[in-house]
Amino acid sequence: MKYVSLVRHLVCTAALFAIAGAGMTAQRGIGVARTPLGDGPWVFDTAEQHKVRAVIVTKGLANPWSLAFLPTGEQLVTERSGKLRIIRNGVLDPQPIAGVPPSKMQRLGGLMDVVLHPRFSDNRLVYLTYSKPGEKDLIATALGRGTWNGSALTNFQELFVVEPWWDGQGGAASRIAFGGDGMLYMTTGASVANMKDAQDPSHHKGKVLRLRDDGTVPPDNPFVGRPGHKPEIYSLGHRNQLGLAIHPQTGAVWSNENGPNGGDEINVILPGRNYGWPDVSLGRSYEGPWQGRFAKEGIEAPLVYWMPSIAVSGMAFYTGDRFPAWRGNVFVGALRFGEIAQTGHLQRVVFNERGEEMRREMLLTELRQRIRDVREGPDGLLYLLTDENPGALLRLEPTP
Amino acid sequence: MKYVSLVRHLVCTAALFAIAGAGMTAQRGIGVARTPLGDGPWVFDTAEQHKVRAVIVTKGLANPWSLAFLPTGEQLVTERSGKLRIIRNGVLDPQPIAGVPPSKMQRLGGLMDVVLHPRFSDNRLVYLTYSKPGEKDLIATALGRGTWNGSALTNFQELFVVEPWWDGQGGAASRIAFGGDGMLYMTTGASVANMKDAQDPSHHKGKVLRLRDDGTVPPDNPFVGRPGHKPEIYSLGHRNQLGLAIHPQTGAVWSNENGPNGGDEINVILPGRNYGWPDVSLGRSYEGPWQGRFAKEGIEAPLVYWMPSIAVSGMAFYTGDRFPAWRGNVFVGALRFGEIAQTGHLQRVVFNERGEEMRREMLLTELRQRIRDVREGPDGLLYLLTDENPGALLRLEPTP
Repeated sequence: MKYVSLVRHLVCTAALFAIAGAGMTAQRGIGVARTPLGDGPWVFDTAEQHKVRAVIVTKGLANPWSLAFLPTGEQLVTERSGKLRIIRNGVLDPQPIAGVPPSKMQRLGGLMDVVLHPRFSDNRLVYLTYSKPGEKDLIATALGRGTWNGSALTNFQELFVVEPWWDGQGGAASRIAFGGDGMLYMTTGASVANMKDAQDPSHHKGKVLRLRDDGTVPPDNPFVGRPGHKPEIYSLGHRNQLGLAIHPQTGAVWSNENGPNGGDEINVILPGRNYGWPDVSLGRSYEGPWQGRFAKEGIEAPLVYWMPSIAVSGMAFYTGDRFPAWRGNVFVGALRFGEIAQTGHLQRVVFNERGEEMRREMLLTELRQRIRDVREGPDGLLYLLTDENPGALLRLEPTP
Repeated sequence: MKYVSLVRHLVCTAALFAIAGAGMTAQRGIGVARTPLGDGPWVFDTAEQHKVRAVIVTKGLANPWSLAFLPTGEQLVTERSGKLRIIRNGVLDPQPIAGVPPSKMQRLGGLMDVVLHPRFSDNRLVYLTYSKPGEKDLIATALGRGTWNGSALTNFQELFVVEPWWDGQGGAASRIAFGGDGMLYMTTGASVANMKDAQDPSHHKGKVLRLRDDGTVPPDNPFVGRPGHKPEIYSLGHRNQLGLAIHPQTGAVWSNENGPNGGDEINVILPGRNYGWPDVSLGRSYEGPWQGRFAKEGIEAPLVYWMPSIAVSGMAFYTGDRFPAWRGNVFVGALRFGEIAQTGHLQRVVFNERGEEMRREMLLTELRQRIRDVREGPDGLLYLLTDENPGALLRLEPTP
């Protein structure tokens, strides 16, 4: 008799809390599957690119969240517990990088995104987002930057702190990306206790913010000077945004966010627009009723959505030449695979010339790893972080 | 190096046409994965029922479509090519059953559903739906019944023929089920060339019909006596319905249908209601644009939907006692697994006490088989048909 073991071991309820985007309930954690990653490499047949190989760069990470490629070839990786790590020539330095601000791994928060300034070669600025610890177990999402001196961050400055502080339950994620206009786009999530904050322009939460590289407000932001509106707001009505990428041709800002029980989305972010959370959603609430209406006048519809949720995470456009059949596709990390077996995969989304979705492909399902982030390397290969502990950096490459 | 082969062999374009519900384009067939079924049995760990075993009853079927359990223990199975087969004591009779009407396997049509009369023990009536061959390569969906004499159907009568005849491209599927009211519910699909037929009450296509057991119109049907309305119509606005099941407690009629590029649905069918196809849909068209609006006043929202499509097929409520954790759940066959790797699985949907969806589980994904139908046997076990050639009847049972 063959034994196909899907559930290698059940994870405890505490770990389940970190599974999806936000606001997981105990109910969601029924019989969750987790599979330890082997040593690889693995070769996968895929639909359009045919054979691709997944190679482990390192397995020594703890819940890695994001990575950035230094022009000198090293990779910077954030760990949600608060450490910034560096991989040199494929070897993970056992010492974390000094000069990183204090952060707190609370609920789904912690140390999150790491992004280089577009003129990094000149100014050596590294940007981080993180949950800043406060009083009475409150946290706030913060943005800061430090200067890379070749081995550490120096002169780290906090640039912006999201109002209000909260207990961290809900949309703790904060991605950042520099747009084609040189501005810094920063996502903030809605809390579970105050979901309506996402619709409230006097709060920063549940928004995409647009900032100058020093954290100040660009004067051409859509709500500048409007009473009752935070001037940093670029768009509103978001839940927990775990992926942010700039379209390589149009410069448009694409963000993805987790729905509750269904309704994960990719949105094209336009100035001053409302994306509907929590009133308009294509998902159900965790308790069963529909979250709200599927659509509403004045609310932007998603470009791509998922039902059931796959707990979308890091997102990247593929622009390289190592996977010719994948050029122009969007890759999205998934923290889930089906609604109950809580392990993830990588998803590929194909668009037509009008930017409309044509089809999707699930990749690396057999590995059953939660994929937290996906990035294209300067070598044209794809790099993936698994949200596990131990967690891995994987490289996807064509077979010879 | 490990080699994880997802694509064991590519199927030819001709075979791809039969993959999903309706109207497949060549584009959809990119690099399709098909895996021959091994000999089993297989044991799977699942989220709530834990270990279950899948056993092959027979692998000698060709694109089986539906099955019915005779009170004497045998199983009747339709093959889409037009044969009705019988399995006695787990052995497939090599001889097809005599007395079955001529049918034509054209596009997605052929011999389809097989259902026993609710008073079969008295009247021994077996109902079939099938694509009736006509002139100039036209077909029509037909309903008929014959009398089971223990080894063959006798006195087969055509009871009802769906208007109009067409080329078979699109919603060819026709499921039937006897409701709690003793009436026979019959699904019909919309053609690709004339999708709007689903909204046209003067056509039978793209509807759920309600008939007496002799194929005539019950006088309390919602559109009886209304000019321009076919009196058989019970609900309208459907695409291609591949699953139909009666709720074991409420007697409600549940139907599922395939969306185009996303937007598969389960609907609770109510008299005189409109389910929106092709104007209201949660999917995109194959060419990329949204099919229509997500929602509209006066159009019934689905109870469950999928994005991307899994190509939903046969559907059953589980009511038995062999899988206690699954009681009250709905099982749906899936002809796909992701948008590109075109192999299927079994999906389980869990509802709360208000009938709202709580979560889903993908089962048997490793087998990578297109699951055409799922039924609960009189023994409380689940039986699955794989839409393959050779195709199998599988039995799902708890491990000892």
